[in-house]
Amino acid sequence: MENVIDVIDAVPAEPWQIRETAPLGPRAFLHETLFALGNGYIGLRGTHEEGGAAGLEGSYLNGFYENEAIHYPENAYGLARTNEFMLNVPNAKCIALTVEGERFVFDAGKLLAYERSLDFRKGVLERTVEWESPQGHRVRIDSRRLVCFGRKHVAAIEYRVTALNFAGRVEIASRIDSEVTNLQAGDDPRVGSAVTGPALSTLSREADGEGELLLQRTRNSGFLLATGMRHVCATASAGRGAVHAFGASLREGEALTLHKFIAYVSSRDVAEDEVPRLAREEMARAAQDGFAHLVAEQGVYLDRFWREADVQIEGDDALQQGVRFNQYHLLQSVGRDGRTNIAAKGVTGEGYEGHYFWDTEIYVFPFFLFSRPEIARALLQYRYNGLPKARERARQMSHATGALYPWRTIAGEECSAYYPAGTAQYHINADVAYSIRLYLLATGDFDFIAQYGAEIVMETARIWTGIGSYDREGRFCINEVTGPDEYTALVNNNYYTNAMARMHMRFAADMAERLRAERPADFARVAGAIGLEDGEIAAWRSASAAMRLPYDEALGIHEQDDSFLSKKPWDFAGTPKDKYPLLLHYHPLVIYRHQVCKQADVVLALLLLSDEFSLDDKRRDFDFYERVTTHDSSLSSCIFSMVANEVGYADKAYHYFMETARLDLDNTHANTEYGVHTAAMAGTWLGVAYGFAGMRLTGSGLRFAPALPGKWTSYRFQVHVQGALLAVSVDAAGVHYKLADGESLAFTHHGTAVQLTRANPDIRLEAA
Amino acid sequence: MENVIDVIDAVPAEPWQIRETAPLGPRAFLHETLFALGNGYIGLRGTHEEGGAAGLEGSYLNGFYENEAIHYPENAYGLARTNEFMLNVPNAKCIALTVEGERFVFDAGKLLAYERSLDFRKGVLERTVEWESPQGHRVRIDSRRLVCFGRKHVAAIEYRVTALNFAGRVEIASRIDSEVTNLQAGDDPRVGSAVTGPALSTLSREADGEGELLLQRTRNSGFLLATGMRHVCATASAGRGAVHAFGASLREGEALTLHKFIAYVSSRDVAEDEVPRLAREEMARAAQDGFAHLVAEQGVYLDRFWREADVQIEGDDALQQGVRFNQYHLLQSVGRDGRTNIAAKGVTGEGYEGHYFWDTEIYVFPFFLFSRPEIARALLQYRYNGLPKARERARQMSHATGALYPWRTIAGEECSAYYPAGTAQYHINADVAYSIRLYLLATGDFDFIAQYGAEIVMETARIWTGIGSYDREGRFCINEVTGPDEYTALVNNNYYTNAMARMHMRFAADMAERLRAERPADFARVAGAIGLEDGEIAAWRSASAAMRLPYDEALGIHEQDDSFLSKKPWDFAGTPKDKYPLLLHYHPLVIYRHQVCKQADVVLALLLLSDEFSLDDKRRDFDFYERVTTHDSSLSSCIFSMVANEVGYADKAYHYFMETARLDLDNTHANTEYGVHTAAMAGTWLGVAYGFAGMRLTGSGLRFAPALPGKWTSYRFQVHVQGALLAVSVDAAGVHYKLADGESLAFTHHGTAVQLTRANPDIRLEAA
Repeated sequence: MENVIDVIDAVPAEPWQIRETAPLGPRAFLHETLFALGNGYIGLRGTHEEGGAAGLEGSYLNGFYENEAIHYPENAYGLARTNEFMLNVPNAKCIALTVEGERFVFDAGKLLAYERSLDFRKGVLERTVEWESPQGHRVRIDSRRLVCFGRKHVAAIEYRVTALNFAGRVEIASRIDSEVTNLQAGDDPRVGSAVTGPALSTLSREADGEGELLLQRTRNSGFLLATGMRHVCATASAGRGAVHAFGASLREGEALTLHKFIAYVSSRDVAEDEVPRLAREEMARAAQDGFAHLVAEQGVYLDRFWREADVQIEGDDALQQGVRFNQYHLLQSVGRDGRTNIAAKGVTGEGYEGHYFWDTEIYVFPFFLFSRPEIARALLQYRYNGLPKARERARQMSHATGALYPWRTIAGEECSAYYPAGTAQYHINADVAYSIRLYLLATGDFDFIAQYGAEIVMETARIWTGIGSYDREGRFCINEVTGPDEYTALVNNNYYTNAMARMHMRFAADMAERLRAERPADFARVAGAIGLEDGEIAAWRSASAAMRLPYDEALGIHEQDDSFLSKKPWDFAGTPKDKYPLLLHYHPLVIYRHQVCKQADVVLALLLLSDEFSLDDKRRDFDFYERVTTHDSSLSSCIFSMVANEVGYADKAYHYFMETARLDLDNTHANTEYGVHTAAMAGTWLGVAYGFAGMRLTGSGLRFAPALPGKWTSYRFQVHVQGALLAVSVDAAGVHYKLADGESLAFTHHGTAVQLTRANPDIRLEAA
Repeated sequence: MENVIDVIDAVPAEPWQIRETAPLGPRAFLHETLFALGNGYIGLRGTHEEGGAAGLEGSYLNGFYENEAIHYPENAYGLARTNEFMLNVPNAKCIALTVEGERFVFDAGKLLAYERSLDFRKGVLERTVEWESPQGHRVRIDSRRLVCFGRKHVAAIEYRVTALNFAGRVEIASRIDSEVTNLQAGDDPRVGSAVTGPALSTLSREADGEGELLLQRTRNSGFLLATGMRHVCATASAGRGAVHAFGASLREGEALTLHKFIAYVSSRDVAEDEVPRLAREEMARAAQDGFAHLVAEQGVYLDRFWREADVQIEGDDALQQGVRFNQYHLLQSVGRDGRTNIAAKGVTGEGYEGHYFWDTEIYVFPFFLFSRPEIARALLQYRYNGLPKARERARQMSHATGALYPWRTIAGEECSAYYPAGTAQYHINADVAYSIRLYLLATGDFDFIAQYGAEIVMETARIWTGIGSYDREGRFCINEVTGPDEYTALVNNNYYTNAMARMHMRFAADMAERLRAERPADFARVAGAIGLEDGEIAAWRSASAAMRLPYDEALGIHEQDDSFLSKKPWDFAGTPKDKYPLLLHYHPLVIYRHQVCKQADVVLALLLLSDEFSLDDKRRDFDFYERVTTHDSSLSSCIFSMVANEVGYADKAYHYFMETARLDLDNTHANTEYGVHTAAMAGTWLGVAYGFAGMRLTGSGLRFAPALPGKWTSYRFQVHVQGALLAVSVDAAGVHYKLADGESLAFTHHGTAVQLTRANPDIRLEAA
């Protein structure tokens, strides 16, 4: 096979796509992730129809999971008991091609041409292969694959084979591979799950001339899963058992085309007896509409998405490609049915076991809130649906009232098997409250608050008065928690946690009081449901007012926790590069006893609670924490970029942004093989809007403070906010704000008040 | 079966023994532990020869282990990788009795008489049973069992059956049961191990007319184990396979007696090819010497032990029984070959998996040091032999130099699978150093220091300069450790740890300098071996001088760690009794964030570093910590008793002492079924010597401050110290000190100097 250069990480000719020009090679495993397709429910890794995955043959359904008891070598009360993990479901993509009796595989014969691309506007993975068999038969294979954004349960493949230099028999055999298993976790805690053996048992496999329906059940979680395929081909199927073969004798230049329509439905989505019916219906409908129709639908869907969500950056095509790649993968990954969420790796791999984290609320949520608010609302709905489990978890953690969200989960069960960097991250509760607050600020949708939000916010606020206590100086302290920075665990008065808890309790009190005033019936219902007692609202106010927020007078910085500054500084000079990330080279005790951060913690508070800090504070904090942060977490660089922008460190802002924007495309964290980093992907969008454009939406309103990085000619993005759609364009000449939709919008630009209306829909101002 | 009252916990007629009068019943599982026999190597639980264990049929060899990989549901770098656990070895006690074809079992037929007793002076478990078979044949079974103190590898059984009311056939069948497995750990982290399946595979089973030798190999640790039995009986063996049957036709009143000699030898003790040979030799020698001889030897051994070690308490027979029971079990449990140590549960059960902890150095060691110094020396030798593994562990924990002892281990590997209450307890290093210091103070044996002790002390001291750092105020801080109190974990500047580290570093510096001055060749050898660098001794002195020792001015108490006093006090009033021990009812995070102690921490420092505190300090600390301590650890009450004595709280001292002294006999911690609590047993002895008699041996010398508890008529104990054997007797009339052996001894009595010599060997003084 000739050695074709792989150009995915070179500057793309067209920053709307990714492209590869060789099927194998050292980056093949990585590319299986990058070329993954998804629609927020189905996720198919970018492996080939013909098999031979370089890394991991994976098909996933967002929110569909198996569970398994967690075994601890040394047990303790209240540790998470059951793990939920995203299951690798049957691979329905399988197609085998035989040319005059010779089986097509990439590593036999001669590869005459190869290209594969994924265009973010089309949402179709396209591949062209020209191959000469060992016996000299040349064929072209044109295949297209899509996972339908508009059809939750459907994926489809077009597979066309053209005889190039011969007349003869071509056979395309299609099947569903049910013998799939999940990856085994090795020593890296960030990879795969601990499950062993097959998790799905097959109940039935019904095949007919049109296709097949496979019914399986998960061993422990007990879900029914239907995986189906249905074929449309000029020739009839000559199936043998589970294999459906389509053969034709082609003349030179003639082609045989197979359309394969795939459906996945599970009893997590619909009632048991609906599962096979829905799968059959969806396949039949797709087959009837036809492959071309699905492609057209996909284009329409993406057209709308990009019209509103596209971030345009002129002057750096590689970056432009990265930014769009990230947004596209977010759209592919996010659950939008209120019962699912967005996993740390989306539906592209098994890293972190398909779990949902705070990444959603703090990173991904704002992107959708400002780009596709209805998806953001569905993410909040997911948390509302998780309240019963969160209440159970709170009881396990000895909280008499309230709800404690799991640190990592799929269906709501706490799945964190290492509590110092899991359950101890109580800030998850405040993160959820923060996203609800931001939702209200951005949409004004108080109906949602009345119906769902207030209950979440109040139930979760109660945990703070439960966990916290007043010290001898009367300060409200929150002890024995872990903040966002996982290189420091089980500390007292983590700055981020305390500051966010204060925001949370104040917001809970505000919402309770507003609800009581404006919608007394709703207030009565919610208060009754959660058994809110007299004095709780006042207790939130008191605790907020007395909140301990560590500040070091000598250094003039906010201390990450009560003891952070009295720890020994990490010896960065003496730490060779191959010892990063530290977590893979040092015992937690070694890391924890040093002044070293994995990621933004105080710096994240500077961003989220922007109004609570002076600019000088922010700069001093940034300076200090930048020196001690490794950014071993993919959640870090984007935050540093945004704050660097705010404090006027343009070069650093650009550097950290670039660390984030192509993190997966360039595999800078060296584990994208196991899935994309959805939080960093969203951090890229935030890096533009919150970062370079200085956007903040707080209780004091919406503001922008745009700057143009020296390397860019211009950039442009849009935000849905307060019923309007605002387009922000920044170039050397200045900033152009335009009300693309809506009646009016007020905000500030570098402190100056701006008001756009239908009558005066745009304004051009100077950048920084 | 008639319901016989079980009198073990009633006041014994004879405080030299324990006795039971029913073989079954609710306490049977517990009694299997209490009636366990051991010799520091072999341990046989007090199950019956005929089987039918109520709880656990267990036979153990101290230091003989299997290992197994530890699997974490969420992994991290440097976590303990391999567990070593004490193996349940073949049960060689098995004897089956058949009377005229009817098998003797306790729960069939009629039990006409039953008594079992263990006399601490004899060291023989004696049982008498009169039984009537369902067909009406009456027999008396007299059995005696011993594990030879003087023969490491040997145990023996005498089994005599007398036909009481019939003439007929009696058959005694003997065998080794090789189908044994370890207990499975349930939810209680203190019980059993996580191993599954059989750990021993049988290589051969050689039987002849005299007995049998079973050779097995452990699956992972690879040790060879020989389990042998050899019989002496009036009739010849008629073995069938692995069963050796001895039958006789008895006339009424006639008896058949079987002597069974058992040997256990493993390749942890001797070279592989020596294993079967040594087992055969030991059995042959025992058989030749005869059972009566072994019983006599046992008496001689114990006679010497009690002559020196007996603590006599007049006025409370139940207590006297408890005290002796504890000392006796310590003698049964302690390894004395320099390669083994004393497990938390001795060799009586599988709790804590047969692991050795700091319990040895801080609790058990002083008992042996003052009662049997050569055993104490063997315990230190064990730590010396563990240095290479401790160095490896230090490297894993990123210490460039030095040695870090494992928190729990058998052969030296860190086996703690929950590092916050395991590896984080760095104080283990100082505990070992403390015992070496005490050894030197008690024996003056500087040869030991030069040969072994200095190397241990210096290598382990290096960890403190490695882990510690100077804070901004120039104080030497030790961060992110766990002190003795396991209800508070991963804290900064744990008082006990810091104070003990200071003692340790000072002692290391002292020993280094004394060695250099007195034995320069030894110093050069040790310094060379460990690569001691210039400045290290000075660094120990500097760190000691600058050591941060948290003290709260407002309360006038030593703070357990930097944050202990700012935590929320535990709601003791609101905690029902059935929620203790807390660790079984609350998540670690809940416990850790409260002001609550499982056990003595600062209070232990008050005892061990007695000279560093004023009496007022001690009283205030005691008052404070007593209020927040649950004593959920069996290591706690004895320490509180000793310090209560010192600060003048006689009633509390007595109360805590009583909590300790009969902890296992009365099963007050409700888990003695899984093994005795060796640390509390030693704490009982300490509770008399250190507690009521106020003995301390520190750098400023030996002192006593005896008091007589109101309920006692008198008490008496002896200590080996500085080459002398001192007898201390306390009664209402006063205190009698007598030099029982040695040339002279100087000490203080309530501050008054006393000097005893051969010429003036005793003195009578007033008690407190």
